Amino acid sequence: VKPYPSYSLSRDPEPRPHMGGTDGASTTQTSEQNWSVTAAKEVSFQIRLTSGVLDPGNQQLIEAGAAVGQDLQPRRLLVVDSRVADIYGEQIRAYFLAHGAKFRLLALPCTEAGKRIEAVQQIIDELDDFGIDRNRDPLIAIGGGVLMDIAGVAACLYRRGSPYVRVPTTLIGLVDAGIGSKTGVNHGPHKNRLGAYYPARVTLADRSFLATLDDRHIVNGLAEILKVALVRDVVLFELLETYGTDLIKTRFQDGGDDVGAAASQVLHRAIQGMLQELAPNLWEQDLERLMDYGHSFSPTLEMAALPQLLHGEAVSIDMALSTVLSLQRGLLTEGEVARIFAVSKKLALPVRHELIEPGLLSAALAETTRHRGGEQRLPLSTGIGKATFVNDVTIAELTSAGILLAGRWSHD
Amino acid sequence: VKPYPSYSLSRDPEPRPHMGGTDGASTTQTSEQNWSVTAAKEVSFQIRLTSGVLDPGNQQLIEAGAAVGQDLQPRRLLVVDSRVADIYGEQIRAYFLAHGAKFRLLALPCTEAGKRIEAVQQIIDELDDFGIDRNRDPLIAIGGGVLMDIAGVAACLYRRGSPYVRVPTTLIGLVDAGIGSKTGVNHGPHKNRLGAYYPARVTLADRSFLATLDDRHIVNGLAEILKVALVRDVVLFELLETYGTDLIKTRFQDGGDDVGAAASQVLHRAIQGMLQELAPNLWEQDLERLMDYGHSFSPTLEMAALPQLLHGEAVSIDMALSTVLSLQRGLLTEGEVARIFAVSKKLALPVRHELIEPGLLSAALAETTRHRGGEQRLPLSTGIGKATFVNDVTIAELTSAGILLAGRWSHD
Repeated sequence: VKPYPSYSLSRDPEPRPHMGGTDGASTTQTSEQNWSVTAAKEVSFQIRLTSGVLDPGNQQLIEAGAAVGQDLQPRRLLVVDSRVADIYGEQIRAYFLAHGAKFRLLALPCTEAGKRIEAVQQIIDELDDFGIDRNRDPLIAIGGGVLMDIAGVAACLYRRGSPYVRVPTTLIGLVDAGIGSKTGVNHGPHKNRLGAYYPARVTLADRSFLATLDDRHIVNGLAEILKVALVRDVVLFELLETYGTDLIKTRFQDGGDDVGAAASQVLHRAIQGMLQELAPNLWEQDLERLMDYGHSFSPTLEMAALPQLLHGEAVSIDMALSTVLSLQRGLLTEGEVARIFAVSKKLALPVRHELIEPGLLSAALAETTRHRGGEQRLPLSTGIGKATFVNDVTIAELTSAGILLAGRWSHD
Repeated sequence: VKPYPSYSLSRDPEPRPHMGGTDGASTTQTSEQNWSVTAAKEVSFQIRLTSGVLDPGNQQLIEAGAAVGQDLQPRRLLVVDSRVADIYGEQIRAYFLAHGAKFRLLALPCTEAGKRIEAVQQIIDELDDFGIDRNRDPLIAIGGGVLMDIAGVAACLYRRGSPYVRVPTTLIGLVDAGIGSKTGVNHGPHKNRLGAYYPARVTLADRSFLATLDDRHIVNGLAEILKVALVRDVVLFELLETYGTDLIKTRFQDGGDDVGAAASQVLHRAIQGMLQELAPNLWEQDLERLMDYGHSFSPTLEMAALPQLLHGEAVSIDMALSTVLSLQRGLLTEGEVARIFAVSKKLALPVRHELIEPGLLSAALAETTRHRGGEQRLPLSTGIGKATFVNDVTIAELTSAGILLAGRWSHD
């Protein structure tokens, strides 16, 4: 039985007349044959908001992405952010030992500056040296967004596609980098210039890892959560408004009180919102993407400021600028803008940066326009939880928004 | 309108009881949320057996893979095998000048030894420096199998997938490397270890390029044509039997006689056969692939003998060994085997190699078995134009086939 009946191969049986000859004057008729191949590939993946992933009694991680009913010893290459390995390395090893797996742990130093093809090659070398069966032995990526992005490129390329599993350990990983289908590494000065749409078979999102995260990385993830709230979820915005400060303090852990319940809701709504936007547009054929909010100027800013800004920090600065653009256009009221900046202050998010000046904004807008098929398709807030797309932003308008932002808002 | 309605996002709304806790004795109940995303990506590509591709009056190449109705100046990065650039460089430049394109020609030295990720990065650097719109400006790859494989990886990775067009200039490119969806580069000692299933939008297969090809590269392509003949097309086999020598002499050009007509038929049947095998199995989920004939031991042989053997030469040696395996098992008669070796001699294909010894055969079989999901799935001839798959080949059997081959057949 062929597993993929969904294809067609058609051939044009009629020889078509065709102009040839190297001299414009002479023409020859030759027959021509055309074949068209059309096939559909089904892609399927799971996100589980769960807990206790490293508990030896928990089967989820050892079973994730593996062939059902396999009776061989599991082999797993574990690619782990080196900071995560420092804290959880022993627990990770104990887990795979308890499940009788043959495994190797590759601790990878992860920074935005090191998110390059060389790191992908390092993983590939380990895969080759360790030896996996691409049909049975998923690569397991344990770490933050940078690690998952690198590991995703390696899995995509290895033997023309090998399965992988993501275990995000940061907040941005849990709600953003671990959720979608995008993988990528930087190339030259360009962020995520190389990559693919290649989702992990399973993402196990376990908030208990957040207990050991520093404030800055909690805040980094809150930027992406605020993004989802601003463009499509007023309830999520209100949760951030009410519980923002407490969520940072408690690191999204469940203390059995209302803050713990709010943390659960925030994670749930952030993931749900992200998936509802991504699922119908997994390969980004639709270039108008709400999830691009805060991602129009930030890729250029983030790369220009390397290694100063975390991803979410650059996104937050971009969102602040976009909020002022909306204000200037009358798409947001002064009251709404005040509420938005109050929440971003509560979340300790940065809203301005010295590199936000006409030169960078102009380069960023040109790059984003090219990336979005020749139109700006810039998402702008039209109220809390609502957004639209515009195509007519000018550099003058951006410059004045930058000046207004720098003059009126800061969280210092 | 969302372009991709074919998706589903489902969520398990019931909190499921789940065993947790770091201590085996204590258990806690936590709620869990699962989301499943399923989406289908349609892939569509065209193969055109055509002519006059570089004639300035021919629109096919400038229009291939480009957005319909575009009114902007076309921008094209042309990645060209440096040997091809030496011969056709001026003609290629004249073609794109005649069509008012903004273009850059990157001449890339292409050898199997240089088919590595660094060459992909070189193309990426040129794409970045030249600047293309991934929605409008396809990369154009002009060259043989090595060049198309490298360019395909670059196109696949660049901005998470950019369109490309293939213009094969070798026989193996016309009937094999330019036809399917596979791209790849070597890594360490492993052939095509990195890559993706990422077909060119359009392949323009123009046999006039073969006029400047040397004998060895014609023969190299004939190996893949013989493969298609042996496993599924007795008519194609008979054409090779009758016209093999003439096809090498005439380089598949059309002299208006029966040899030219045979050349057309051979190209047509080879491409048609390849596509009929590939189209239902574009992502190789079905691991029993007739097109793997001659590709069980040859990847290891080709890499071990680098840079001595061309791909088709290694495939031919593998097919000779496989033919003897079939003979030993009684799957082929002495008469059929004699016919097969007579044709391979007529095509000047190599049938043996000093590296065909137990050590290499053992390593190759292990690697192939791993690559095919833990079973050998070895295609073996069961008559001319027919084949089956076996899973029980032993090293002893392979060794004795190698000895028999070396003792009885040679084309010297």
